[in-house]
Amino acid sequence: MWGGRFAGGPSAIMREINASIPFDRRLWQQDLEASRAHVAMLAACDIVSDDDADTILGGLDTIEREYERDGVPEDWDLEDIHMTVEARLAELVGPVAGRLHTARSRNDQVATDFRLWVRDTIDTLSEALHDLQCALVSRAGDHADTIMPGFTHLQTAQPVTLGHHLMAYYEMIGRDVDRFRTARERLNDCPLGSAALAGTGFAIDREMTAQALGFDAPTANSLDAVSDRDFALDFLSAASQCALHLSRLAEEFVIWASQPFSFVRMPDALSTGSSIMPQKKNPDAAELVRGHAGRIVGCLVALMMTMKGLPLAYSKDMQDDKPPVFEAADLLALSVAAMTGMVADADFKVKRMREAAELGFATATDLADWLVREAGIPFREAHHITGAAVKLAETKGVALSELALEDFQGVDARIDSSVYEALTVEESVAARASYGGTAPDEVRDRVNEARNRLGMT
Amino acid sequence: MWGGRFAGGPSAIMREINASIPFDRRLWQQDLEASRAHVAMLAACDIVSDDDADTILGGLDTIEREYERDGVPEDWDLEDIHMTVEARLAELVGPVAGRLHTARSRNDQVATDFRLWVRDTIDTLSEALHDLQCALVSRAGDHADTIMPGFTHLQTAQPVTLGHHLMAYYEMIGRDVDRFRTARERLNDCPLGSAALAGTGFAIDREMTAQALGFDAPTANSLDAVSDRDFALDFLSAASQCALHLSRLAEEFVIWASQPFSFVRMPDALSTGSSIMPQKKNPDAAELVRGHAGRIVGCLVALMMTMKGLPLAYSKDMQDDKPPVFEAADLLALSVAAMTGMVADADFKVKRMREAAELGFATATDLADWLVREAGIPFREAHHITGAAVKLAETKGVALSELALEDFQGVDARIDSSVYEALTVEESVAARASYGGTAPDEVRDRVNEARNRLGMT
Amino acid sequence: MWGGRFAGGPSAIMREINASIPFDRRLWQQDLEASRAHVAMLAACDIVSDDDADTILGGLDTIEREYERDGVPEDWDLEDIHMTVEARLAELVGPVAGRLHTARSRNDQVATDFRLWVRDTIDTLSEALHDLQCALVSRAGDHADTIMPGFTHLQTAQPVTLGHHLMAYYEMIGRDVDRFRTARERLNDCPLGSAALAGTGFAIDREMTAQALGFDAPTANSLDAVSDRDFALDFLSAASQCALHLSRLAEEFVIWASQPFSFVRMPDALSTGSSIMPQKKNPDAAELVRGHAGRIVGCLVALMMTMKGLPLAYSKDMQDDKPPVFEAADLLALSVAAMTGMVADADFKVKRMREAAELGFATATDLADWLVREAGIPFREAHHITGAAVKLAETKGVALSELALEDFQGVDARIDSSVYEALTVEESVAARASYGGTAPDEVRDRVNEARNRLGMT
Amino acid sequence: MWGGRFAGGPSAIMREINASIPFDRRLWQQDLEASRAHVAMLAACDIVSDDDADTILGGLDTIEREYERDGVPEDWDLEDIHMTVEARLAELVGPVAGRLHTARSRNDQVATDFRLWVRDTIDTLSEALHDLQCALVSRAGDHADTIMPGFTHLQTAQPVTLGHHLMAYYEMIGRDVDRFRTARERLNDCPLGSAALAGTGFAIDREMTAQALGFDAPTANSLDAVSDRDFALDFLSAASQCALHLSRLAEEFVIWASQPFSFVRMPDALSTGSSIMPQKKNPDAAELVRGHAGRIVGCLVALMMTMKGLPLAYSKDMQDDKPPVFEAADLLALSVAAMTGMVADADFKVKRMREAAELGFATATDLADWLVREAGIPFREAHHITGAAVKLAETKGVALSELALEDFQGVDARIDSSVYEALTVEESVAARASYGGTAPDEVRDRVNEARNRLGMT
Repeated sequence: MWGGRFAGGPSAIMREINASIPFDRRLWQQDLEASRAHVAMLAACDIVSDDDADTILGGLDTIEREYERDGVPEDWDLEDIHMTVEARLAELVGPVAGRLHTARSRNDQVATDFRLWVRDTIDTLSEALHDLQCALVSRAGDHADTIMPGFTHLQTAQPVTLGHHLMAYYEMIGRDVDRFRTARERLNDCPLGSAALAGTGFAIDREMTAQALGFDAPTANSLDAVSDRDFALDFLSAASQCALHLSRLAEEFVIWASQPFSFVRMPDALSTGSSIMPQKKNPDAAELVRGHAGRIVGCLVALMMTMKGLPLAYSKDMQDDKPPVFEAADLLALSVAAMTGMVADADFKVKRMREAAELGFATATDLADWLVREAGIPFREAHHITGAAVKLAETKGVALSELALEDFQGVDARIDSSVYEALTVEESVAARASYGGTAPDEVRDRVNEARNRLGMT
Repeated sequence: MWGGRFAGGPSAIMREINASIPFDRRLWQQDLEASRAHVAMLAACDIVSDDDADTILGGLDTIEREYERDGVPEDWDLEDIHMTVEARLAELVGPVAGRLHTARSRNDQVATDFRLWVRDTIDTLSEALHDLQCALVSRAGDHADTIMPGFTHLQTAQPVTLGHHLMAYYEMIGRDVDRFRTARERLNDCPLGSAALAGTGFAIDREMTAQALGFDAPTANSLDAVSDRDFALDFLSAASQCALHLSRLAEEFVIWASQPFSFVRMPDALSTGSSIMPQKKNPDAAELVRGHAGRIVGCLVALMMTMKGLPLAYSKDMQDDKPPVFEAADLLALSVAAMTGMVADADFKVKRMREAAELGFATATDLADWLVREAGIPFREAHHITGAAVKLAETKGVALSELALEDFQGVDARIDSSVYEALTVEESVAARASYGGTAPDEVRDRVNEARNRLGMT
Repeated sequence: MWGGRFAGGPSAIMREINASIPFDRRLWQQDLEASRAHVAMLAACDIVSDDDADTILGGLDTIEREYERDGVPEDWDLEDIHMTVEARLAELVGPVAGRLHTARSRNDQVATDFRLWVRDTIDTLSEALHDLQCALVSRAGDHADTIMPGFTHLQTAQPVTLGHHLMAYYEMIGRDVDRFRTARERLNDCPLGSAALAGTGFAIDREMTAQALGFDAPTANSLDAVSDRDFALDFLSAASQCALHLSRLAEEFVIWASQPFSFVRMPDALSTGSSIMPQKKNPDAAELVRGHAGRIVGCLVALMMTMKGLPLAYSKDMQDDKPPVFEAADLLALSVAAMTGMVADADFKVKRMREAAELGFATATDLADWLVREAGIPFREAHHITGAAVKLAETKGVALSELALEDFQGVDARIDSSVYEALTVEESVAARASYGGTAPDEVRDRVNEARNRLGMT
Repeated sequence: MWGGRFAGGPSAIMREINASIPFDRRLWQQDLEASRAHVAMLAACDIVSDDDADTILGGLDTIEREYERDGVPEDWDLEDIHMTVEARLAELVGPVAGRLHTARSRNDQVATDFRLWVRDTIDTLSEALHDLQCALVSRAGDHADTIMPGFTHLQTAQPVTLGHHLMAYYEMIGRDVDRFRTARERLNDCPLGSAALAGTGFAIDREMTAQALGFDAPTANSLDAVSDRDFALDFLSAASQCALHLSRLAEEFVIWASQPFSFVRMPDALSTGSSIMPQKKNPDAAELVRGHAGRIVGCLVALMMTMKGLPLAYSKDMQDDKPPVFEAADLLALSVAAMTGMVADADFKVKRMREAAELGFATATDLADWLVREAGIPFREAHHITGAAVKLAETKGVALSELALEDFQGVDARIDSSVYEALTVEESVAARASYGGTAPDEVRDRVNEARNRLGMT
């Protein structure tokens, strides 16, 4: 019955399905860090002798040097990173190694290691997002006056500035940073000392290990501490939303780089050619960022579904927590870096953007607003008058600003020649000067605020 | 070609696919609230006259009374709640109604209404979660000494107390409350005044509307303001994690209520009988809570997928934001209420729990800990000795505490008669007195802290 | 504790969480149909008398007329459609109504009703997909010669024909039809008679009810029959993939309708204007179809997650099977109809398409192929030579076909004047005449095959 | 700006985000197979010479031997498996290697390779599922008479046999096999020759390559052929549903293995101990199978979301198709193998099952059925009478069959002593002998049919 890969039967299958060392060896630094804090506490509490603790700490140092140099060995019989470290420690220092596992269990150990890893990853990602924000703000500052069409429904709607458009992404990424920050705050309790599920009978000092590992406090309930993967889901939720933001900018770059738009030329370093079409310059990096959003959300769904309906306390299903988190973290780190490169180095075709902004009667709203403001007409009526003017312009094949005054007055007698001032794209963007609007001065204010907040000089 | 429902052809299809009034009429209070703030601001900024503003405000009051009394009419030709309100306003007050839409657009209007709705819902849910926490803490206080088996892998692992177990859920729900709280903080900026996408040329006071509606500030970028649905995703992420927590407790109730466990008898009011099996008492409410977790996560996936890759600014796809949020909010509100009822009224069978805690050599860890503590044996070695003792007890068909002293000493000569004190389930739970452990005194401390935090008297 | 909506406490909550009648009343026709088949079989097997059966059948007829005329009453105390029908039957015909539920249970009843509903829906959807295919093929036939740019990475790659492009969607929808067809085949076994979970002790004839209801056979295992929702998941999987296909065409319509592309003008009946931008013509229907893909996949995820880890046999979680299926079915029916309308009535701007096809050196591959074919150069080398020619043309700001012969020969001496024939877009598409290629004759062959297959005259 | 891993800036990022060789090298056999078929066809069509074809085929053979011996080299600069093979071919046979890529592109090449891989994987999985079915049927045959409680809502409902229960999973897996079969049929068209997107100008014979690779036909539309990933989604949908089935059996094993149930002792080879609780025997394999269901569905969601809204033809996002498919295939193969081992070697505790079947008034339905059958009472009335009898037995603390005849007659005078025959669990299961019911003879018939269908001797 057991052909092929599983010729060894159930024990071969078990070896393969059970081993987490192929992926959890990635936690080796956190495992050593937590073990050091644990043994130091055991010594301080007189649960192990100082000598034994020193021996164990020495062994852990040796292991750290070995892993740094040679990587973590992947022996499936040792199952996971925790047994791998402990087994090596036993080889190095003998039976005293067996004292390290006093007053802890793999359940609180892995919960601690994994929290540390997620926390480290949040810190690294937050820096990367800061860099992306800097790139956005920097380019936005350059293009506070660059006029482009603003779209709704991908239809030319009103002129905006490219700086304003880029600052929209600065806002989104700002929320991502905040989301990772609150996720970090929520995860920052230390499970160590919760042992298998019920706490421990040894008189340990959980405050001490929590502090040593940079946690705010020990977790308050041992059953929860070993059963909880909220911190991983918080990370995946934040990662998913961030990936969605990146996917939106990626989509825009793909569309903008398309020949009919030609709003942007993507950086050579982040594009590729074609094996059969030598002329192609494909926005691969943008497409991959967009595609990765799907996979990152897939990781979130995976862990949510795995956690659904699990009774307390630890169940082995929870071993499936790490692959989705590692995958999402890697994909997001790459996506953020790639997007930062695209933003920093994109060659925006400002002339094309400006031309496109003139199309599509983009200043029609400005006509409606003029009618409200200058002629005191209720907005809904102004809207109807504007519709008639647009229809006339469309029939004549001209822009709104190219309609003759008599044309306008044929539509509505209250229109006078001052209307023309409202109908240029420059006037249009300059007029939208209320807070958060697209007026260049307003954009510059936002850019300057952002530069200060980001610590850009 | 257009048979059946769509006999009217494309315009009939469009009417049906485009109309959001069947679901967004649920925003009617928020729409009126935002319109009131908007027109008051327009008057304060001299964009509409005080008289016109008063007329409009009067009309809005009338509409409020009508909707409260008769519900919101569902005229598909009016498409959405915004047009429904405005059309009725025009009927009531005439053309001056057309001034209300000055300096705003449906894009910022719906973003504002929907944020207000999500904020209100978070507030309501947070209260419901507070009630659930109170129910958990109250029952936990009653059962701080009630011994039950603690499970890992659904195998009897170590004795714990029921109070400790319930307090694990108090912790989980506490994180949910915090998650909704940070979601609320992050959403609390006001999009109103962002207009269609570019801001407005009218000299409006966005601070004023923001304050009037209880927001912290106006949003900083108009393109982002109308394109952003992070607040809806934050809500759905928090709802999903909360639903997962509830699904875990629901699973436990289902298993505990099963005859072989018989740890609990579910409240009659939250159970049903069977149409064919008169003796059945089915934990329907628990099962529905567990099932709803799937649907709530489905709602999150729906909106994440819908938002993926949308270019700025508003796209009509975003009209698909409301059904998943409404559905998840309804399902979660019901789930929280049902779970609160189950927790409050569950009839825990403490005798059965206690009996089950004696099974499965649940104090084996206590023997291992005794060997470490009293005989100074390294944990790993103690673990092996314990394994031998368990095997012996299993062979003899007795509990660990029923092994004779000579049996213990045959396994390891260092064991003496004081070991028996460690092997009762009472001693086992009492021993786990480090912070967060299952010892009754420790559980009582956590319960008292929680009572204070929740304001329970 | 029980404020607001749940002032009635647990029983009010239970009433609301437990009632499925708000949604499952949609199964009323299937419920009557299955009840008729069941009672006819009971009579044929002498389990109820012919008189009783006639009385019951008469009552069911009355109910059918009532529901057709007045709709299904929604009394939450009756919980679901099955109890609603049976309660009404009891009112109409008295205690004999109680004989209808002999040898069946709600578990097999709902499984049967729901299968019938899904089967009916598949049939309706399959017809709608047939109409969409007809629309695609019809427009493809009109545009077998219409040249447009073929894109990869949304970059102009090679010229194709619009007919070829539309026929790609004909293929996709063909797979959808096949997917629904195999789903239908797999669901077509009849659960009726499986009773609660174990089968029934009455000597019923399951073949007879299966045949009467148009099933191929009775299900072979009663536990499976009442626990299985594969047919719902098959439906949702097929619906999801179909929605993904529609989302791709919707995305193309949105991009094509954008001013810089202007490849298409969407039908007025399936577009809308803007409340603030009178000139806008928004492709709302296309955007909603794209957005609906997210919600339909959300429905699939919901049910998959709900079904995960459910022990046999029926669990109440499975009551959450119907809302996602109903929602997905409705959204997909609307999406297919809307897309059919868009395809049928889209106004393709063939001149713009043709112009765009000339951009971007779209015939570069044809140059490479010419080098291979006419000069015997290995493809990889031909690829490099072509790259050099494109670079030269780009530098000179001309199209490939506008390079002088000496320019070509400067790049590679083996090029002669016959190369120009290969570089027009007409030649390019005509050349791709291998099976499945974009050559107009080839497209016409595929269109004709499709017309035959679809029964188009 | 580019710290850490991306110190090399955009080109380092691009190298990492763009390279698919780390995962797509898994396609190496399929890539060689497709290349062989392609070059043989090119020679047969006189597009390359026989000598060149022989040289290329020789080179491909050499590469196959190298990869078998040494694995596939992972040079990120070569991006993917296709370039890796072609580059090695060029090293081995010189510029003639460049002729291999004539009339194809990476777009049709990867579509072909990946279809071949998915097809091979379906074949392997189908065999594994066949083995699982054999294990189920074999154990079901052994336990056709073993009585256990049948559950609904995890409440004891009616007695069933273990054989019947196991055969329910045989049915589920049968549908999975059918789902993979129809997925295989739907994927079995050959994209090769579709080239980049438009087909090729070379006079190739697509029938020939299709046949050589075991496909039914060439794909009918080149744009669709390179844009389609339905086959991957079909695979993932089938894998997800299969994983859901396995998760249900896994859940049952976990619950059954729990001490209060003790229905089963899981095989030692598929269980583990605890690092802190020496007495534990954890059903790890079952839990991992259950957990894997989440990850497999996550893979499906990932690819669905990635494909949403992609315009034709190939977009680079589609490179994200392979990791989810590979991951799901690996997890499912392991899950099926582990479940087969669990089914084959589980030690069912038939005595405990039988005892549990007596609990909970499991034959109440049999009393109701007796009342209908023997006393001619309408089912609904019989249901009420039974409820009263159960209540009485519950009050007296006895089983239904232990009620005295006068007790029964006090409830309803029509009950006589023959009722006792209906109330044993043996009678109960034996009575349910209609098709698909749990009666041992009926189960044996189903087992025998299954044995024939599976070719078991």
